[in-house]
Amino acid sequence: MSEAKFDFGLIGLGVMGKNFILNVADNGFSAIGYDLDQEKVDALKRESQNGMASATTDKLQFIRSLKTPRKVMFLVPSGAPVDSVIDDLMPFLDKGDLLIDGGNSYFLDTERRVTKLKNSEINFLGLGISGGAKGARKGPSMMAGGDNDVYELISPILESVSAKVNDEPCVARVGDNSAGHYVKMVHNGIEYGLMQLIAETYDLAKFGLGLSNKEQAELFSGFNEGKLKSYLIEITADIFTKKDDLSPKDLIDVISDRAKQKGTGKWISQNAMDIGIPIPAIDSSVSMRVLSSFKEERQKAALVYPKSQSDPSRFTKTDLEKALYFSFIVTFAQGMRQLLEASSKYQYGLDLAEIAKIWRGGCIIRAELLEHIREAFSDSSNKEHLLFDAYIISEIKELLPSVNRVISVAHNAGIAVSGMSASLNYFNAFRSEKLPLNLIQAQRDYFGGHTYERLDKPGIFHTEWED
Amino acid sequence: MSEAKFDFGLIGLGVMGKNFILNVADNGFSAIGYDLDQEKVDALKRESQNGMASATTDKLQFIRSLKTPRKVMFLVPSGAPVDSVIDDLMPFLDKGDLLIDGGNSYFLDTERRVTKLKNSEINFLGLGISGGAKGARKGPSMMAGGDNDVYELISPILESVSAKVNDEPCVARVGDNSAGHYVKMVHNGIEYGLMQLIAETYDLAKFGLGLSNKEQAELFSGFNEGKLKSYLIEITADIFTKKDDLSPKDLIDVISDRAKQKGTGKWISQNAMDIGIPIPAIDSSVSMRVLSSFKEERQKAALVYPKSQSDPSRFTKTDLEKALYFSFIVTFAQGMRQLLEASSKYQYGLDLAEIAKIWRGGCIIRAELLEHIREAFSDSSNKEHLLFDAYIISEIKELLPSVNRVISVAHNAGIAVSGMSASLNYFNAFRSEKLPLNLIQAQRDYFGGHTYERLDKPGIFHTEWED
Repeated sequence: MSEAKFDFGLIGLGVMGKNFILNVADNGFSAIGYDLDQEKVDALKRESQNGMASATTDKLQFIRSLKTPRKVMFLVPSGAPVDSVIDDLMPFLDKGDLLIDGGNSYFLDTERRVTKLKNSEINFLGLGISGGAKGARKGPSMMAGGDNDVYELISPILESVSAKVNDEPCVARVGDNSAGHYVKMVHNGIEYGLMQLIAETYDLAKFGLGLSNKEQAELFSGFNEGKLKSYLIEITADIFTKKDDLSPKDLIDVISDRAKQKGTGKWISQNAMDIGIPIPAIDSSVSMRVLSSFKEERQKAALVYPKSQSDPSRFTKTDLEKALYFSFIVTFAQGMRQLLEASSKYQYGLDLAEIAKIWRGGCIIRAELLEHIREAFSDSSNKEHLLFDAYIISEIKELLPSVNRVISVAHNAGIAVSGMSASLNYFNAFRSEKLPLNLIQAQRDYFGGHTYERLDKPGIFHTEWED
Repeated sequence: MSEAKFDFGLIGLGVMGKNFILNVADNGFSAIGYDLDQEKVDALKRESQNGMASATTDKLQFIRSLKTPRKVMFLVPSGAPVDSVIDDLMPFLDKGDLLIDGGNSYFLDTERRVTKLKNSEINFLGLGISGGAKGARKGPSMMAGGDNDVYELISPILESVSAKVNDEPCVARVGDNSAGHYVKMVHNGIEYGLMQLIAETYDLAKFGLGLSNKEQAELFSGFNEGKLKSYLIEITADIFTKKDDLSPKDLIDVISDRAKQKGTGKWISQNAMDIGIPIPAIDSSVSMRVLSSFKEERQKAALVYPKSQSDPSRFTKTDLEKALYFSFIVTFAQGMRQLLEASSKYQYGLDLAEIAKIWRGGCIIRAELLEHIREAFSDSSNKEHLLFDAYIISEIKELLPSVNRVISVAHNAGIAVSGMSASLNYFNAFRSEKLPLNLIQAQRDYFGGHTYERLDKPGIFHTEWED
């Protein structure tokens, strides 16, 4: 056995793992990867150019060659594989070693592991990583949950490999325990929401404005030079320019419209219901992905319920841009509001400005808008809701007529705009001092004796409605 | 100790329990209630008029006075109390005795109890009961899950006490194991959806048509004479006529618009995401109840984002009726589609026509529309989706222009119509042979290498988008 010499170890050399370890090595830290798959181990060794990264299929060699306290990250599928990796490592670790779960773990699983590992005096961080394969290689955004002194063991490496915006690293310890994976879950929910909104915009541009794919590319390129500037808008413009290798068509036109999901997108919606936060724009993106999978039913329904071709109304490209920006803002607002509630509910101690800051680079939802969101939550007078920020207020007011126009045309043309509608209805409900849910309270008391509260007096009241 | 003589025992003498046991006694079965609260026991004895119902605070007396095989129902809060009741009873039961959980148990809890009790050779039914306090007294709708021969032990009593429509009892064994509580969960989800839609209609009539409460009562009374005829519409009309005892106002105007929920409404949405069924109209009713609770934020937002008073557009009362009916149909369609999926996923063997049949009377969602739903699913050519039924197709086509009109006005006036929008967008997505989610697939492959499927060839494909 050679002497311990590696600063960092990584388990799981898939695309993400390989890219992450090469990134670590590029930044001057020595790193070793471990995977049972010899091909993956060989690939990593081959691609390591500065000699700072190595790899092995031998677990003992992997563990023994790490400097103590050992710093071991794993990037494996969420659920049971994470527990297996931890259990496998435990007999070989020393007190004070650090395990980092860099995968997409469900935050309650992370919470359970935090407790378990605390008892063993093994340090642990749950680390949300966003940026895909390219981000892992060139600089991801990372959200760490755990104790501050534990985070400091690894922060030099994480700050080096992370994306940078204005020289500020896109990584932070966002809070205690499972906070990192929680924040990543909300990131992914916002990602779902934004992707659904962009898809609706594509549909509206296609069927409402009659744009070709080339014109769609121009449209989204234009959006990317304005307030909508963001990674998802940028790659959308790019996608429309791609030619298919297997046919003379544009690639977008041969891709199936059954959307897939890894099953983690629903977590945020299910948790929002548990903690009592409304995120309908994100919920609707989950249900639209699900609905898209019922292609045969949709084909049958398209024959039974043909859409109207005659729509006299029109909206402009600017309306579309504004409708999309409005919906982006409201979707971010819902996600941030959920973070605020979770911070209190789970005692994470989240700083929303810090989270917006590290989302500005490296991650899938990076966007110019996040600079405004950061500023909004840096203002100590508004920690409550993004929609109460002065800049956002003036934007929203300016955008609103376009949203109404676009949705109205969409409905008349039979184009589904679930995400935009959910954003608009959320906004309209949010700005309603009086909602009609007094009627629901009356109904519940009428049929179930569930009682109600009054506007004018404290207390709980019941009425015998059928006297 | 007196000799065993009671046909039926009931644990938990709250309003529901007391009413249910009085109903059993009215139907000629001898019944005994058990509760630790002496006042509740006394109240039941006092209200039992034909001498067929008794009650006790003595558990042993309760158990010994039941004819064997004992038939014991409990109506206690869901969760741990149900397990407590079962554990408390077990030492005193004999093989072949029957326990019936008549509460709102989560179906996965019921599934666990089914397994546990099967091992003990104690018979068990999970029974969903709807109809509120009045239904329990006069005839509820009941959905039983369990083995057929077990159901037959209690079916004479259940059929006697249930609501009747055209002499047909509103009770059935809907399927195996937890099927009864699952179907009740979907019932409650539809109930949430319909209540939200009615609340939106109230808001639209108030702010869109300027109706007074008296005129609202007339509007809903009118609706109740048409296709919308249903219990919830009927009590809504009634609610608007009620005067407040504590002020000169109409009662509806003093009731708080923070809606409450017992926490079970989210179950259907969370499960729909687990089994991959889109029910956005129901999801939105959950999120709107949650949003209503943030009253201080809404009051603040109302000042910041005042609503426009100038809306030149108009819709008629008939448009409103049609928009509501459209949304009722789509909400029922989503719930029924979830039942179909659950039947396959959990092997319940559900008969959707039978379920529609027993929902026609006694329960909160009883409605004329359920007769059409029953017919739709009795037709062997359509077991797939309510929206493929010939009658429903012609209705939907006729209603659609009104929905578009009402939602457009609502948006311009700043009235939130989450349920109607979710219904309409679901419908428009459902009838889209091509959804824009091919773009989402392209994005996922672009940033995460998640691959995609093609429209023209089988297989899994990946593109190097950034070449």
